[in-house]
Amino acid sequence: MTLKTNPYKGTRDLFPPDKRVLDYLFSTMKRTAQSFSYEPYDGPLLEDIELYRSKSGEELVNDQIYSFHDKGERFVAIRPEMTPTLARMVAQIHRKTPLPIRWFSIPNLYRYERPQRGRLREHWQFNIDIFGAPENMGEVEVLQIVLALMKNFGADQSTFEILINDRRIVNFVFGKLLKLDQDKSSRLYKMVDKYKKISPDAFEEGLSQIGLDGVSKENLFRYLALDSFDAVFEFLEQMGGLEEKNNLIGFYKIVKNLKIDPYLRYDPTIVRGVDYYTGIVFEVFDKHPDNRRAICGGGAYANLLQIFNGPPLHGVGFGLGDVTLKDFLVSHKLLPDFSQNKVDVYLSAQTSEGLPRVMELGHRIRSRYQDIKVLTELRPINAKKAFSNGKKYKAKFLALIGERELSNNEVQIKNSKDKDSISMKLSNVKDIIHFFHAKNPSNDYLDDSEDANDKEKS
Amino acid sequence: MTLKTNPYKGTRDLFPPDKRVLDYLFSTMKRTAQSFSYEPYDGPLLEDIELYRSKSGEELVNDQIYSFHDKGERFVAIRPEMTPTLARMVAQIHRKTPLPIRWFSIPNLYRYERPQRGRLREHWQFNIDIFGAPENMGEVEVLQIVLALMKNFGADQSTFEILINDRRIVNFVFGKLLKLDQDKSSRLYKMVDKYKKISPDAFEEGLSQIGLDGVSKENLFRYLALDSFDAVFEFLEQMGGLEEKNNLIGFYKIVKNLKIDPYLRYDPTIVRGVDYYTGIVFEVFDKHPDNRRAICGGGAYANLLQIFNGPPLHGVGFGLGDVTLKDFLVSHKLLPDFSQNKVDVYLSAQTSEGLPRVMELGHRIRSRYQDIKVLTELRPINAKKAFSNGKKYKAKFLALIGERELSNNEVQIKNSKDKDSISMKLSNVKDIIHFFHAKNPSNDYLDDSEDANDKEKS
Repeated sequence: MTLKTNPYKGTRDLFPPDKRVLDYLFSTMKRTAQSFSYEPYDGPLLEDIELYRSKSGEELVNDQIYSFHDKGERFVAIRPEMTPTLARMVAQIHRKTPLPIRWFSIPNLYRYERPQRGRLREHWQFNIDIFGAPENMGEVEVLQIVLALMKNFGADQSTFEILINDRRIVNFVFGKLLKLDQDKSSRLYKMVDKYKKISPDAFEEGLSQIGLDGVSKENLFRYLALDSFDAVFEFLEQMGGLEEKNNLIGFYKIVKNLKIDPYLRYDPTIVRGVDYYTGIVFEVFDKHPDNRRAICGGGAYANLLQIFNGPPLHGVGFGLGDVTLKDFLVSHKLLPDFSQNKVDVYLSAQTSEGLPRVMELGHRIRSRYQDIKVLTELRPINAKKAFSNGKKYKAKFLALIGERELSNNEVQIKNSKDKDSISMKLSNVKDIIHFFHAKNPSNDYLDDSEDANDKEKS
Repeated sequence: MTLKTNPYKGTRDLFPPDKRVLDYLFSTMKRTAQSFSYEPYDGPLLEDIELYRSKSGEELVNDQIYSFHDKGERFVAIRPEMTPTLARMVAQIHRKTPLPIRWFSIPNLYRYERPQRGRLREHWQFNIDIFGAPENMGEVEVLQIVLALMKNFGADQSTFEILINDRRIVNFVFGKLLKLDQDKSSRLYKMVDKYKKISPDAFEEGLSQIGLDGVSKENLFRYLALDSFDAVFEFLEQMGGLEEKNNLIGFYKIVKNLKIDPYLRYDPTIVRGVDYYTGIVFEVFDKHPDNRRAICGGGAYANLLQIFNGPPLHGVGFGLGDVTLKDFLVSHKLLPDFSQNKVDVYLSAQTSEGLPRVMELGHRIRSRYQDIKVLTELRPINAKKAFSNGKKYKAKFLALIGERELSNNEVQIKNSKDKDSISMKLSNVKDIIHFFHAKNPSNDYLDDSEDANDKEKS
């Protein structure tokens, strides 16, 4: 039988050019998180289905989740998001761990949905969370991380903005002003979430189904028209939402002090789902005209540990998917070119007798400096072919062992930029590397990587 | 309802200390693969079940695989190994890609099995493969990678050895000498695979079930007693396996020339499963008395693309799981200490008014050098508490903004090693960083990381 070679629907085969892109996204996420001293964590791909039943919306559990019974009749799910796993893990350790807890992860997630632009069945998501920070300070640090991340990807104020709201304000409007019960409140949350995407008629239709009219309806539209922090402060003042106003002012003062307010815009339609969030919520929005949508969202939440009978714990976090992030970077021409494998040194022998010599030379170079990328040609080729291959691999240096070099125990090294050529003794690996370095000082051949530095023998 | 906080059976919650270990394993794997210019790839976690039916042994598909029907009635599996996905991907591109193809990946995999030491339901596996290399050269390069990897983890000849066999020799012995048909041959493969683990009686019992006696049985035991390359050369010479002898001599000459033969030992019981491998096979074996087992295995194969109607393609590869690797490193005390989060700079303010200053300072330090790990204390604390916190976070430097510093627009910086203290202007971030660097020159603050260097704007 002949099998098809295409991947499962809604998933991607990541060939090297695509995997290098993903690795670049991951390493930038990781470096950013670590620059704020956030610590890495991960959890299992499979979880008890109950974990999602209790936390996520019903829609997710019923329609969008990958679930099945294992051979021991456990009903399990492939994780559709990281937060329930995070909650489960934090519930195990929060009593014995000094606060704040600062964690990040980049898990792969699965959702059963119709594949479309920016939405695939399988994707990765960068998750940042801080637990137990003082009110507003955790929120601001998380926004700082978002801004650092965008900057590290080369994005500036012309490419994105952060839309801000506060769930306590939405609760005040829906509960105190509109006097909606929980069911109607939930329905209105979903409508407001889609306010910019649905037609005015459809929105009106939804309002009448909820039974919203008269002054209540007027107040809702006044709320939905708020488009600046000043406007919302005034609105809350007039409507008697003083506590809500003071909360938001506390937050706003800090972001103004840190001069990150130019990146922020108040938006009353940002609600981020029905359950879960309890304070400041935000979405990072792409300003590109072809790509007007959220590339990342998050906010503050208090009741993450409830399902484990844990106490309220102030948390702030955000999640950023790889697919939307990549679309954003491509739209703004911010994605570096990863189409080619780039090697540092391309080694070749011009005779079969020279082959073991180049393999040994490669071994000795790598032993000395792990971070040099050395490609060894595994069959003898002539010098002309070596030059064209070196070009193909974007090699910075070519090292050749022809007949003359073999009998002299030498290697001929060529710099692909200036075509300089030099013969060096094969035994002199240290000098060979220093030659590479001197000719190409931007390389980090002589440095140790971050991970190597971090380690201490136990 | 209250949920349990434990993870799904046979899986792990990776809290930061464990995740740092895993990240260290991954980054060492990745650096080693890239030092040989291997390119990264990845595939979907879910695959059509047929992909495993056609390739893997029946046991795996029936008992050990996680499989289910998705909501569109597709019968899918969570990948239990990477090779079928690799085959599917190579089948798509091998005709248009210059050979050899050198690829690596570090996927998470799932197998339904009873959790035990070294065997979990979820694990990660480092996979290295080269396609289209000349006979023996790909085999030797892959062994070089194994050796480089072990060396990069700090392991030397006292801790491990590489057991080698050749499937063509096993086929010669089973087919030509013992004259077994395919079914009996398969059964004997499995028995030989377990030869060192089962009792002599159980082995004898198995032989009589296969119907092996007389000269055939004698020949099998002569084969199983071979314990060196020289012994197997002599055996093949006597038995008429000249082609098989020449194959192995070709391989042995190269490894001897490269001086890696001291790491290798011929072992007739290494067969690596019934299907799949067609040439040289090997296992990396732990020499530690408490841990005598394979930590990694691989070999040469020719028919990977057959299930896609592709032509024979010479491939060599190996797979190394994170669980066995970690056990190996722990047994030999080779695992660095990752129990603590280590920060470079710990920032704190002694008054509320100073808080925005330290947050801004942190922002400006990170903006300038992504690789500095800065932890900002989010509430005002006194200097004494700052010192004890700095110790807790293993901070190399403390930066404090007290009342005096606040009014002078300064920051006080302390080196946690020599207790040196200096006050610097807050506006002078560049000098502040250079001070860190001068005091701790081993740090890579002033360098860019490999990924940052690699990128070119497209």
